[in-house]
Amino acid sequence: MAPAAAAAEKGRQHTGKAVGLAAHDASGHLAPLTITRRSTGDDDVAIKILYCGMCHSDLHSIKNEWNNAIYPMVPGHEIAGVVTAVGKNVTRFKPGDRVGVGCMVNSCQSCDSCDEGFENNCRAIILTYNSIDCDGTVTYGGYSTAVTVHERFVVRFPDGMPLDRGAPLLCAGVTVYSPMKHHGLLDAAPGKKQKHVGVLGLGGLGHVAVKFAKAFGMKVTVISTSPGKKQEALDRLGADGFVVSRDDEEMKAAASSMDAIINTVSANVPLAPFMGLLKPNGKMIMVGLPTKALEIPPFDLIMGNKTLAGSCIGGMRDTQEMLDVAAKHGVTADIELVPADYVNTAMERLAKADVRYRFVIDIGNTLKNSE
Amino acid sequence: MAPAAAAAEKGRQHTGKAVGLAAHDASGHLAPLTITRRSTGDDDVAIKILYCGMCHSDLHSIKNEWNNAIYPMVPGHEIAGVVTAVGKNVTRFKPGDRVGVGCMVNSCQSCDSCDEGFENNCRAIILTYNSIDCDGTVTYGGYSTAVTVHERFVVRFPDGMPLDRGAPLLCAGVTVYSPMKHHGLLDAAPGKKQKHVGVLGLGGLGHVAVKFAKAFGMKVTVISTSPGKKQEALDRLGADGFVVSRDDEEMKAAASSMDAIINTVSANVPLAPFMGLLKPNGKMIMVGLPTKALEIPPFDLIMGNKTLAGSCIGGMRDTQEMLDVAAKHGVTADIELVPADYVNTAMERLAKADVRYRFVIDIGNTLKNSE
Repeated sequence: MAPAAAAAEKGRQHTGKAVGLAAHDASGHLAPLTITRRSTGDDDVAIKILYCGMCHSDLHSIKNEWNNAIYPMVPGHEIAGVVTAVGKNVTRFKPGDRVGVGCMVNSCQSCDSCDEGFENNCRAIILTYNSIDCDGTVTYGGYSTAVTVHERFVVRFPDGMPLDRGAPLLCAGVTVYSPMKHHGLLDAAPGKKQKHVGVLGLGGLGHVAVKFAKAFGMKVTVISTSPGKKQEALDRLGADGFVVSRDDEEMKAAASSMDAIINTVSANVPLAPFMGLLKPNGKMIMVGLPTKALEIPPFDLIMGNKTLAGSCIGGMRDTQEMLDVAAKHGVTADIELVPADYVNTAMERLAKADVRYRFVIDIGNTLKNSE
Repeated sequence: MAPAAAAAEKGRQHTGKAVGLAAHDASGHLAPLTITRRSTGDDDVAIKILYCGMCHSDLHSIKNEWNNAIYPMVPGHEIAGVVTAVGKNVTRFKPGDRVGVGCMVNSCQSCDSCDEGFENNCRAIILTYNSIDCDGTVTYGGYSTAVTVHERFVVRFPDGMPLDRGAPLLCAGVTVYSPMKHHGLLDAAPGKKQKHVGVLGLGGLGHVAVKFAKAFGMKVTVISTSPGKKQEALDRLGADGFVVSRDDEEMKAAASSMDAIINTVSANVPLAPFMGLLKPNGKMIMVGLPTKALEIPPFDLIMGNKTLAGSCIGGMRDTQEMLDVAAKHGVTADIELVPADYVNTAMERLAKADVRYRFVIDIGNTLKNSE
């Protein structure tokens, strides 16, 4: 954002009222809280929130596991709703439009990263919650009844994309779609060999990765520690193969077979065995965020020209494109829709990975606009 | 190679005589030894060797530092010479042609990697020396008077490319050129921003990397532990910048400035500080081969969508292309031409990195074809 615009935004009034589900300390317990939302600025889109997905990072955040919590904290960055008002400069949206907001609500809008469509890489990125906004206030996320967001950071829900099952795509969807795009996995030119992609970990990110990869005609193998997920992966999600990572024979049989692996695992797991599943020129793409240093023997990387890449969500252009592509191919998240008063139970279940595959809070029907 | 062809090659006669500089044990001392070379097969090119570069890996190999030595060992995989005979199927070369041989002398020629021009990634790759050839003999390298090689693994020296200064490009050149190509660093479309590449380590690989990067119009910064190399890097090699890696202020000033780093360092050096020099979407490309596991904090990779890639020499198509491009741009290696009887002294100096930047043995004038 240009300095003048930033200065103007400092004067924004926070006159709107909304109710959020807020954590007040590292216990992570969420309870309704009346919060303020800024009035609709010239570039702003005001949104009535109908659904919000529950991302695993919400759990980390409310419990202050990343040591950066600002309380009270209203989490949520998989937001779907309907436009209620727009500022005078807004051209892409009008009241009544079905829209979404993902992991970020602003950036500098003027650096190379922003110019190239990678607002996610902007150093001045403002995250959807627990972030200091450009007017000095703390951002509150989508576990709330309303939000006001700069037009650039709002995406349109295409016709036919349901708001509830589409909401988790705003984080989980773009997180797996963007690296598939930028690492050349979508280039399925006619006559070219079908790409074979491994999806490591079958959770909120993994199950969406399987769906996108299948939508783009790839061969997909799920790699998981849980043999119990095999049937589901093959029969319901449509994966072509399943490898139990603790089974040496299965791992051996899959050696050197994959063009890429989307690694959704946040646990601290050795990478070397999985590098062995890659073909020459194969790519291991990290979208989970383990806490400990990744270790990789140089030989496993250099022999066969392999790549270990990190990828963090995606830019706004990719987010809109991902939603459009998802609508075209019928890709949505598998969700369990829960009422607002179930959120603490849902968090407990999320901590145990007891969900297939995303909780979505039915904000519109179950969170009242007063405490 | 097809099984029938492989079977035929098993019957090859090794009737040719040559003299090589051979190591007989892990002392690494080299002395002349009469060796045999196979007769010229239907697909073969027989070459009189005139020059051979001394790669650092030759030193590791003759001292058995990689625990895979087969003695007697004749090292050398930066071979330049003249064709003396060709087999009946050979179409690309004729006697008198100026040719080169790099790190490999055969592969299966039928797998996906070979088909795609990445013979370097073939599982059946046969290295130029210390490798079991398809007829069961051990390959001898270019510290010798002659060699016979399958046509596919011979490249042509373009007009104007000197054999002595060109020889090191067969390994060092393609090792840095191939990743520049495959990681998109050569795509300098008109109107696009100039790429900024860091070259980590200024030795045999690094100095050639600087030259290629400059030839392709990139901005080049050398990153080195040795302040003493600054003047040379800037004035003679034409680098645009120089960062002393032990100088925190210089490292800080260069933060987030580079599109890619060609990491030529084989020492076990922490990667994290150098990842910080990369822009978002930046790539660290490993072409050196440290002995210990690479460690990288996940945050340093995932935030900013960064990539850690390995790259091992290059395929035959890339090798020919690299030589052609080098000739066009006047890129050659900086060498110290030495006689054959200097080779042990040269190895001692190589161990101390006391060479700028490649020793090349003047085989043609100083190694006689009898012991």
